[in-house]
Amino acid sequence: MRYFIAVDVIRYDERLLINALRDLGINVELIKVDNEVLPLNTSNAFRDSVILIRPLSAYNAIYSAVAFESMGGIAINSSKALYICNDKILTYCYLIKEGIRIPKTYLALSSTAIQNNLNNLKYPLIDKPPIGSWGRLVSYVRDRLDMKLVMEHRDQLSSSVLRAHILQEVIGFGRDIRCIVVGDEVLGCMIRKSSNADEWRSNIALGGTAENYVPNDEVRELAIKSAKSVGAEIAGVDILQGEDFYVNEVNGVPEFKGFIYATGIKVHEYIAKYLISISRK
Amino acid sequence: MRYFIAVDVIRYDERLLINALRDLGINVELIKVDNEVLPLNTSNAFRDSVILIRPLSAYNAIYSAVAFESMGGIAINSSKALYICNDKILTYCYLIKEGIRIPKTYLALSSTAIQNNLNNLKYPLIDKPPIGSWGRLVSYVRDRLDMKLVMEHRDQLSSSVLRAHILQEVIGFGRDIRCIVVGDEVLGCMIRKSSNADEWRSNIALGGTAENYVPNDEVRELAIKSAKSVGAEIAGVDILQGEDFYVNEVNGVPEFKGFIYATGIKVHEYIAKYLISISRK
Amino acid sequence: MRYFIAVDVIRYDERLLINALRDLGINVELIKVDNEVLPLNTSNAFRDSVILIRPLSAYNAIYSAVAFESMGGIAINSSKALYICNDKILTYCYLIKEGIRIPKTYLALSSTAIQNNLNNLKYPLIDKPPIGSWGRLVSYVRDRLDMKLVMEHRDQLSSSVLRAHILQEVIGFGRDIRCIVVGDEVLGCMIRKSSNADEWRSNIALGGTAENYVPNDEVRELAIKSAKSVGAEIAGVDILQGEDFYVNEVNGVPEFKGFIYATGIKVHEYIAKYLISISRK
Amino acid sequence: MRYFIAVDVIRYDERLLINALRDLGINVELIKVDNEVLPLNTSNAFRDSVILIRPLSAYNAIYSAVAFESMGGIAINSSKALYICNDKILTYCYLIKEGIRIPKTYLALSSTAIQNNLNNLKYPLIDKPPIGSWGRLVSYVRDRLDMKLVMEHRDQLSSSVLRAHILQEVIGFGRDIRCIVVGDEVLGCMIRKSSNADEWRSNIALGGTAENYVPNDEVRELAIKSAKSVGAEIAGVDILQGEDFYVNEVNGVPEFKGFIYATGIKVHEYIAKYLISISRK
Repeated sequence: MRYFIAVDVIRYDERLLINALRDLGINVELIKVDNEVLPLNTSNAFRDSVILIRPLSAYNAIYSAVAFESMGGIAINSSKALYICNDKILTYCYLIKEGIRIPKTYLALSSTAIQNNLNNLKYPLIDKPPIGSWGRLVSYVRDRLDMKLVMEHRDQLSSSVLRAHILQEVIGFGRDIRCIVVGDEVLGCMIRKSSNADEWRSNIALGGTAENYVPNDEVRELAIKSAKSVGAEIAGVDILQGEDFYVNEVNGVPEFKGFIYATGIKVHEYIAKYLISISRK
Repeated sequence: MRYFIAVDVIRYDERLLINALRDLGINVELIKVDNEVLPLNTSNAFRDSVILIRPLSAYNAIYSAVAFESMGGIAINSSKALYICNDKILTYCYLIKEGIRIPKTYLALSSTAIQNNLNNLKYPLIDKPPIGSWGRLVSYVRDRLDMKLVMEHRDQLSSSVLRAHILQEVIGFGRDIRCIVVGDEVLGCMIRKSSNADEWRSNIALGGTAENYVPNDEVRELAIKSAKSVGAEIAGVDILQGEDFYVNEVNGVPEFKGFIYATGIKVHEYIAKYLISISRK
Repeated sequence: MRYFIAVDVIRYDERLLINALRDLGINVELIKVDNEVLPLNTSNAFRDSVILIRPLSAYNAIYSAVAFESMGGIAINSSKALYICNDKILTYCYLIKEGIRIPKTYLALSSTAIQNNLNNLKYPLIDKPPIGSWGRLVSYVRDRLDMKLVMEHRDQLSSSVLRAHILQEVIGFGRDIRCIVVGDEVLGCMIRKSSNADEWRSNIALGGTAENYVPNDEVRELAIKSAKSVGAEIAGVDILQGEDFYVNEVNGVPEFKGFIYATGIKVHEYIAKYLISISRK
Repeated sequence: MRYFIAVDVIRYDERLLINALRDLGINVELIKVDNEVLPLNTSNAFRDSVILIRPLSAYNAIYSAVAFESMGGIAINSSKALYICNDKILTYCYLIKEGIRIPKTYLALSSTAIQNNLNNLKYPLIDKPPIGSWGRLVSYVRDRLDMKLVMEHRDQLSSSVLRAHILQEVIGFGRDIRCIVVGDEVLGCMIRKSSNADEWRSNIALGGTAENYVPNDEVRELAIKSAKSVGAEIAGVDILQGEDFYVNEVNGVPEFKGFIYATGIKVHEYIAKYLISISRK
């Protein structure tokens, strides 16, 4: 079995992964997927290969996974899992089908749909597009005036997928639990809190802070079941706590530098061991 | 069982479908999916319902299918089939896994990848983005100068998915075979030819002309297998003829007005019957 | 002297203009500027010609005016007036230089600039981009949370000019006075009021209502001086009333269907006469 | 008199300018214009000030110049000159009005205009948008097939200004003369040549090479007249040589690192002296 890590930008996370694999005696190779022309149906170059998919750009991740699979390789995560995780609407669909609890969620495919229901919506609410990382365009909508601000600005975006609105009830305002799942195991969790009055989102990229969080059995099961429902072997599962626990997002290429810092859990070592275990299946 | 047709723009095709269902005694309801707020996890309103997914916008189609499925309905096509068909890279991945022949296909995830291989590419070639209908941005690239024109313009597009390049060998220049599959059956085929020297693409929207085409068993099997490989129950399968037959695309919301005109085959009636047959399964 | 009207979309306004010119014995010709290739430096085809510039698209207006001027014609308005009017920041600059009162106005060339001053800004305020018609993206910002919503969404727009923010004090909330200037004369004014609680903007396109408004000498002078300061011979001047009158915008291709309806003033007849008077200069 | 340099990104060029001013005993201040909220009509903070406008982003340059002028300052170049130079169509208009020779130039405001004239255009030609630096989207169009490639890709761009096409005869293929003008003087020129068979453009950013070029009187006069025609006191004037000399572009914020390297002329020192001379006027 050969081992590869697919990247575009190489972060600290990927360096940790390389070292962890080398410590286990694996000579892993990096592939800069955005610098190569990748054959789909004329090569078997990745037979007997495991490729860990780590590009920063979601499309680089999904499409390189497709290419490696087409060349006979085992992409971790699979292109299918990555595609679902990239799109929050698809993710919710798979979670709902497995009976996993998510916040009350509504879909508006245009601002006309919102305008027609401006008085029926229950404010405050969260508005977000199907695609995007680090909390981008995730908006806290206090009332109809905010809703109109968001609608109007979104209508000017040129990407049609960014004109669909996910409307959600607000749960666990400014806090969420990030669990890292590898294989059938929850490695651990951290709780993220937003930084200040002006920024309610808890994303680390937006100044949020994180600390270790000890999950109970319910959270553990929820995280594992969520990862499975979208077909992800390695996942960051975001859970909101209100009266119950609710799954908010499944990340198929989870960053973990901040997670290690908050929890002390060496995610890279677990991932490295998991990759090696695949060859034994 | 209740029957619905999900639409955004209502075309001639959808009017034919409504009439065909009414002729079979079915009182079908139209749903303008872009005018409503659609619940995902708070409603069972589409239990015991079949919803034919017909929006023009690919995202309206995929996301409304997700919503109907989340509300207990049977979407035809399923959201899964629709998102695979919407993305040519995913589609190729599923076709390749089933051993279905496609043109020699390469992936460049950035223009850097192309620039690094400018002299290794075999011209002429077809360059296209993963997403898009009616031949949009599908380019016939004669040589390195054309390749650079295409690269540079694509880099200016704001949607990151449109910056990925599918590079393909040219097969059956200016002609393709469109087969309509419903359930396990190929209803028939038409052959499309490009209109003039300046426009090599055969899309009807670009002035292509079409006439009836009688498929042999190989084409029939290829079309059915292709639709199945992406999970589509109703599909337009585009096949290119070179020395062999090659699958080029699977359309999950096929238009058929032009097909009826070219072949005389009443697609709407077959679809109507297929929808009714589902309830008996 | 020959007379032309440059258009892209032909509105009711342009039909009125054609008829008014014909009633005065002028055989005016329409030019669809977006359907022709226009020479800049190889033609004198528009010598002794007056071209009224009426395209709906701002760039079609500016650039066709340039072309007609380059071909020897007199564009009304001139390309210079049109490009100044098209850009609110340039417009303000010309107004300020002439000592014309505008609302207190600040410029933020990036969201970083806003973020650095989030606590120093005086809310509520109006945020708008330099370019745009019909009130598009003009936002009423109640507080820092709204400001952040607007910043973040604007950062996602692909046009760099739309990432500049004009920040203005709120004056005459939901009401403005639109004056039509032709040559050295104010034809009249209407007052526009916003329609409802959810929409504070008074633009007719956003549901605003309008009625006749009799300007005092101050308003008349302000309108004429504003049009002159940007070099516009025909202009719609928007004035806000607080403790004083403040100029908010000068429109170089004013629509006037609604104005005629509100005031009874036949704008098209005045414009027609003005065009004819030019030849006598 | 106080002296400022307005910047966003600080390049080597700006460091040279600061040093040159300091060597002349001027304590110049840098202003990061994209980090500040700039008042337009509530401040006189830049009375008796000269502000050299050097932002990399064209809109940062234009709009910061407007702001400094509104606050009583002298922007070099003026906002007006910067606005004209930023738009190649406006620039051509001002050059043509002054009788300055430019390549045969045509304007197509939409791809419909091109499609309607596909057979009348004289190939090869240069196609470029009104806005853009470093040769971006400047295309060498060999024939109708290339023309269609360019049309179709441009139609997908979200900025409407980028959908206008400037069509030009090809002159001096792959070579141009860049002259630097300061005040009434041409400091010198360099000739730029494209790097290789795949890249005909001579921009340094695209791999072009440059060497010193000694201008004759005609070139000198052309450069000075061009800068004056758009109101630029400091300018990079690009001239093409065919049977005659033709002006191709006037740059209002010229980069000069490469120019110094090719010619040995210390542009920063001339600019510094020019700025100081202004106060004496």
